[in-house]
Parts: sequence; C-alpha cells; structure tokens
Amino acid sequence: MIKQVDLIITPRWIFSAIDSVVLEKTSIVVDNGNILELIPNEIIEQKYAAKASFNLADHLLLPGLINAHTHAAMSLFKGYADDLTLQSWLMDRIWPAEKKYVDEKFVTEGSKLAIAEMIQSGITTFNDMYFYPQQTAEVAVKIGMRANLGMVLLEFPTNYASDPDDYLTKGLAFRDLFREEGLISTSLAPHAPYSVSDESFLKINTYAQELDLKIHVHLHETRTEIEDSLKQYGLTPIQRLDALGVLGPHISAAHCVHLTNTDLDILAKNNMCVIYNPTSNLKLGSGIANIKGMIERDICIAIGTDGSASNNRLDILNELNIALLINKGVNHQADFMNPAQLIKMATLNGAKSIGMEGRLGSLEKGKCADLIAVNMSSLEMKPIYDPLSSLLYSGNRSMVSHVWIGGNMQMKERALINIDVDELLNGLGAWQQKISQI
Amino acid sequence: MIKQVDLIITPRWIFSAIDSVVLEKTSIVVDNGNILELIPNEIIEQKYAAKASFNLADHLLLPGLINAHTHAAMSLFKGYADDLTLQSWLMDRIWPAEKKYVDEKFVTEGSKLAIAEMIQSGITTFNDMYFYPQQTAEVAVKIGMRANLGMVLLEFPTNYASDPDDYLTKGLAFRDLFREEGLISTSLAPHAPYSVSDESFLKINTYAQELDLKIHVHLHETRTEIEDSLKQYGLTPIQRLDALGVLGPHISAAHCVHLTNTDLDILAKNNMCVIYNPTSNLKLGSGIANIKGMIERDICIAIGTDGSASNNRLDILNELNIALLINKGVNHQADFMNPAQLIKMATLNGAKSIGMEGRLGSLEKGKCADLIAVNMSSLEMKPIYDPLSSLLYSGNRSMVSHVWIGGNMQMKERALINIDVDELLNGLGAWQQKISQI
Repeated sequence: MIKQVDLIITPRWIFSAIDSVVLEKTSIVVDNGNILELIPNEIIEQKYAAKASFNLADHLLLPGLINAHTHAAMSLFKGYADDLTLQSWLMDRIWPAEKKYVDEKFVTEGSKLAIAEMIQSGITTFNDMYFYPQQTAEVAVKIGMRANLGMVLLEFPTNYASDPDDYLTKGLAFRDLFREEGLISTSLAPHAPYSVSDESFLKINTYAQELDLKIHVHLHETRTEIEDSLKQYGLTPIQRLDALGVLGPHISAAHCVHLTNTDLDILAKNNMCVIYNPTSNLKLGSGIANIKGMIERDICIAIGTDGSASNNRLDILNELNIALLINKGVNHQADFMNPAQLIKMATLNGAKSIGMEGRLGSLEKGKCADLIAVNMSSLEMKPIYDPLSSLLYSGNRSMVSHVWIGGNMQMKERALINIDVDELLNGLGAWQQKISQI
Repeated sequence: MIKQVDLIITPRWIFSAIDSVVLEKTSIVVDNGNILELIPNEIIEQKYAAKASFNLADHLLLPGLINAHTHAAMSLFKGYADDLTLQSWLMDRIWPAEKKYVDEKFVTEGSKLAIAEMIQSGITTFNDMYFYPQQTAEVAVKIGMRANLGMVLLEFPTNYASDPDDYLTKGLAFRDLFREEGLISTSLAPHAPYSVSDESFLKINTYAQELDLKIHVHLHETRTEIEDSLKQYGLTPIQRLDALGVLGPHISAAHCVHLTNTDLDILAKNNMCVIYNPTSNLKLGSGIANIKGMIERDICIAIGTDGSASNNRLDILNELNIALLINKGVNHQADFMNPAQLIKMATLNGAKSIGMEGRLGSLEKGKCADLIAVNMSSLEMKPIYDPLSSLLYSGNRSMVSHVWIGGNMQMKERALINIDVDELLNGLGAWQQKISQI
C-alpha cells in the first residue's frame, strides 16, 4: 500500500545531526510538517508517493540551523558602529540610536530584514532578545519563520517599558497572545546581571519554574562586567547568580567569554547551556571563550550570531567556520573540534538551548521538518573528500539553496518565497538615511 | 577632442587603495591594459569614448586582490587532510600524497582549479611556491592570470628535483622561459630555514642580488620549528638568517606566527615584508601572529591564503574578515584595525611583497588594470553605512561579480570567461578518487 505524503527530498548527502555519519542514497519523507522517516532511495517508491518531490543531486541536506542568540531588529544598525571601542560603540552610537529610533515600526522592519537574511543563511529558528517582541513575532508568523522570543527585562527604562514590572507585564501579555502559535515560543529574558537586580532575577526565576520556561540571559561577555561584579559583590556574575539560587538547566547563557575554573564548574554542575557567539566576541574586543574548558565538562554549547550591530552577518555557517578555526588556533591543536561536532552545536544543541530538542535540531521521525539544502556543485567546493568539511571550510551561506520550515518551503534556488525582497530593500533607504544622521 | 579608449567602468563606489577614501560619482578609464585615469562621471563624455563600458550601479570597484602566499597546485588536496594534528597532516597525508601524485600533470590540473577559484574570489595575482612552476605558469598565461612564481629549493629530493643545485637549475631555466611574459614574474623560494641549509641560503641570496629578485620563504610558522632551531643553533630561525647576513627588504616571509620582540625588531630593521596567513595558522594549530607588534614597527604586512591543503578556501576576502575579527579579539580592542587598512594589505602591500608596487596594488594612472567589482545589492549587505565595512563584515566572495586582469575581462556576472568550468569539474572526479585511496 503506497502512502501519499506531502514532500520527499532526495539529496546527494544527508547529515541528520543524530550522530557523525553522512548518509548517501537516502531520502527524507515529510508529511503534515513533520519528518516521517529517512528511507533508502531504492525502496521509497514501494512505500510513498509525494505531492512534491525534489531531486537534489549535488546537495547536502541537513537540519535547519538554529541561531541561539540574536537581536533581530537591530539589523537596521548593521554596519552603523564598526571599529569603535566598546564604550564608544554603546555610548556614541547604539544607545542614542536606540533611544531615538526603536519603536514598534523599527522592530517590525528590522525583524523582517533579519528574518530574510537568516532564511537565506539556512537559519530556520532564532532565539531573540529585544524590545517589542510582539512585533517580531508577528513578522515571523507572517513569513512562516520559527522563533523563540524573549520577554526582556531591564532594571532601567527604555522606549519599550518603564520599570521591571512593566517589562514583565508586557512580556507576559505578549506570551499570552502567541500561546497557540506553533512557530512561536517564549523565554524569560533578563538582560544581564549588571542590568538586572537580584530581586528581579528571583522573581523571573519563580515565573520560569511556574510556567516551565527557559531563561535567556547575557553572561560574562566582557572583562569589565566581571571586574565590576567582583568589586560590588565580591563574586563573578555567575557566582552571584549561583549564590542567589537561580541557576539550573533552564538557563541559557549567551557569551560566557571569561570564566574561571570555578565559573566553568558552576555552569557544568547546573547543566546550563552556553550560547557561543564567536564573531561578536571578537569584533567587540570581548575576547575568546574557553570552549575547550566547556567541552571537557560536557557543557552544552549552542551557537549564536548576536545582533547585527555587533556582527554584521546573521550567518551561523560562518560562525561555525570561525569557531573551528579559532579553537584550533588558540589551543595549538589542529585536531581539536571537527565539522560534525560544530553542526550539532548549531542544530541539536541550539534546540536544547531553547528547550525544543523534542521537536527540533535533528532529522528524526516526528520532529518538525525544518530542513536546508546546500548546493555543493561549485568549483570552490571541489574536490569533496568529506561534505561536512567542504561545507564549513570551503562553503558559505550563498550556497544554501533551499529552506523548509515545518515542511513549508521558504526558499527555492535562493529565492525567498514569502518575502518581497524588492519591497523590503526599498524600505531600507529611509532608515539608512535617518540613522546616519544621529 | 574625444579620445577612444578600451574600457570605462562606472561603479557606485571606488576604493583606490591609495588612501582610505571611498570615491563616488567617479569612473575608471582603461586603455592598453593600463589605468589611464580616475575621472568624475560628469566630465567623462567630454573626454573619452570607450569600446566597452560597464555601468555597475550597485557595485564597489577595487584593485584586484593579491594572494601573497599560496601553493596553487595543492587545490587537489583541498579537504583531504582536515582536523588532524600537524604531524599526522604531514606524515600520514600530505607527504605520502605528494610523493605518489605530484608531477607535471598534477600541477597543471591543480593550478587550473586554484586559478579558477581565485578569479571567482576576486584575486588577480598570486604569489606561489610549489614544484613544477613552469606548469603553473603555462596555465596562468593560457587563462590570463597574473602570477609571481617561486623557484623552489629544498635540501632534500622530491619528485621534482634531486638536490639543491638541481632545484636551482630547474628554477632558473623556468625563469628564463618566461622572462618576456608580462603576466609572469619570479622569486627565489627557499622553502624554510628548517629545510634549507646556510650554504643554500647564501647561494640564493647571491642570485637575489645579481638578478634583483625577491626571496619568498616560510618563516616561524610553528613553535616546533623555533624550538628545534634554538636547540640546533642557539638562535631563532630569524636570528639565524640575520646572523647569516641574508635578510633585507628583498625577503617576503610567510607566516611569522611566533616572534620575540628581538625577532620583530629584526624584521623591522631589515624592511622585510610579512605575509600573514590567518586561516592557515589557525587551522593547523600554529597559532595567532602578533600583528599589533608588526604594525607598531611599521612592518609591511601582506595577506596570503596558503595552499588548499591547509586552508580550504583561496579567498582573500575571507582572510581579511578573519584578520579583522581575530586581531580585535586577541587584543581586546574593538577599534584595532579597520577594513580600509586590511584591503590595503591585500592589494598595495601584496604588490610590495612581490616587488610589483610600481605596477600593481592600487588604482593609479599607469598601473595595470587589475580590477574587481563586487555586487553590493543583496539584502545581507544592507543597510550600507560604509561600503568597505559591508564588504568585509557582511560580504563574501560570491558577491564578486566582475574581474579584469591587465584590462582583460576574466569574469562577468560570476561567469569565468577563459576557463571551461564543466571540463574542469569533470576532470576532478578521477583525482578525487585516486587521492582518496592513498
């Protein structure tokens, strides 16, 4: 009996992210937005007929990449504050620009640009932390992008909210609005230990337990932040939060650049997830995270781009290339880390970082059909001794050819399906002119 | 009186690499393979009429990139030896593969693949060091690529030559064959201090003085090489060559990863040029070069990709991105280095490293018309507050749209003009299969 299904894709190679194996002569079967099975090509016709099928003879198929830390709307600030000291970057550019321009419209248009860029980069889910998350969610749903959005909280007022209670009220109201929306999930997002009080952390942690939510937070990004904490509390920020009793497997911490062994042990003991942002940490002069120390402690590492103001590409493939190179370099160890390991960080670990490993992050029966295909046919990819090596060491995001999210096609041969690119680009000129004039 | 010229290009932006300015509303006029002038668009029609003209409304035009250190023919080993220790990389993979396969045919086909990849990456000149340079030169001339090729010398025998005299004889014979060929120049290329004797260095240095040639050499790539030299000579390799009296402005030294302050001072005192290979140094676990120490001493820094066996992309734009990021990161200084400075390293300094700064490396009257255009119109490049930032922080080589070498078009809208890509790719399958089986 032949079963009718929505979609069958037959690529040259499949990397499922379950193990380190690259499959050949295998197809993936998708129905109702989910993966039905991975099946040898030779028996597929005996079992299935598909409404749509793709024979991608030069392509590597893998799970959609998960951008585990970003601030999507900031894409309008892309390239606006390069090559400045961190101090000048914040004080002279980002904060004045945010104060002047960030509102619902800014977040809507910035999120749309970011989502377009991310889909073209093979990203099918992003974990966001920014003001007006409702606007980002609306754009994501309209396009069909998957997002986990933070209910952001700061101790000080911004255009978006006036005080911690106001942030939390707005965040929870946003969460309620999107509870039935399959593409949108939420986290609690206290900005950072230096911008959020103990009292607010305790309150957020209570909500996290009651509502079974993840907490997405910036942690140990710069040396200054740690020095200030040592002065004020006699503890690093990680040690302070540990003493406060709020750490645990529900915490996903972006950056974690500077860590003592004690800090590393605390992350491990609490089964926390680290979201590694190699480009942003380099570009802002923050430093180089001790990934080796994390791997030695079996800490879950996911990968983020950070926002466009500190990393002008929302491009997880590029993060994986840089992560591979830099960790070999700083450890003087050419055999440290490999492409399969890195891709798993950007897929399965990304899913773990947002509590979605049951639905996302690998090509397994029952998981969402979030899939990307990479065209490996161009000469800079050849010869191909190992397709994962070719992808990360020779390839770039321009080779991502097809993207599906929940089984829906989002990009076909580089053309975005649910975004009018000309309209999007036309709208950017006015923003560029306005922001240039600050 | 209107002058008839070969080519006029009118891009959105021009970066000449003379200073840090990005020009607008300016065209470049090319005749007989050379740059005639950069001229404001509004007066161009009063002065020139062109046989061919290009209006590139979304494009940044800049001097062709110079890959100042590579081993082109090794492109057939791309991805063949990833994620191995340096020892295993050399002993288990590269040396056995070279012994088994490197001959004239290998060099011809590997060089062709590398040149195709380099042109598609916006590289218009490469500085090579490998066996059978005559084959590489023949391929380059046939395609129309510019190359500076090393007369390689090692103390030990290879498939190519039996002893130092044999290497030198073969190198000089090759040089004589191509003396009248405008696209080809040559250097003396003693492999490295650990593989070349004092006697050979002295002999090569005499030839360099007599023939007015540059010397292209690997120097201080790994810590092991320095430790071994300290044991054997009581000197670092740089100090050993300094004591030997062979250093000077004619030396272009690839890598220079590990340097004491004394070593740095020797490089500066001798006006040597360093060829920085950030990706290769990271990927092989060699380490991170002290670029800040070089800049503080005004040492000329050019940029190389190294060969495809240690960096699976011959992609200078990517090297510039990584160089920017990593030097900000290791120095904890976000305002250290900027895109204009990096592009000058990959153009004007590249030209200096091969002694060609009079003809190459910037857009100036009388210099060769080696030009590349980058299409900046795609959404991942937008907004554009500074086109050089967009190029290096957001762009990639897939955006290089047009390439001219000596005024001859080599690529148009990504299509290579003098290379049959299908034929090239068809030939690779057999190599891939053979090399996989070693």
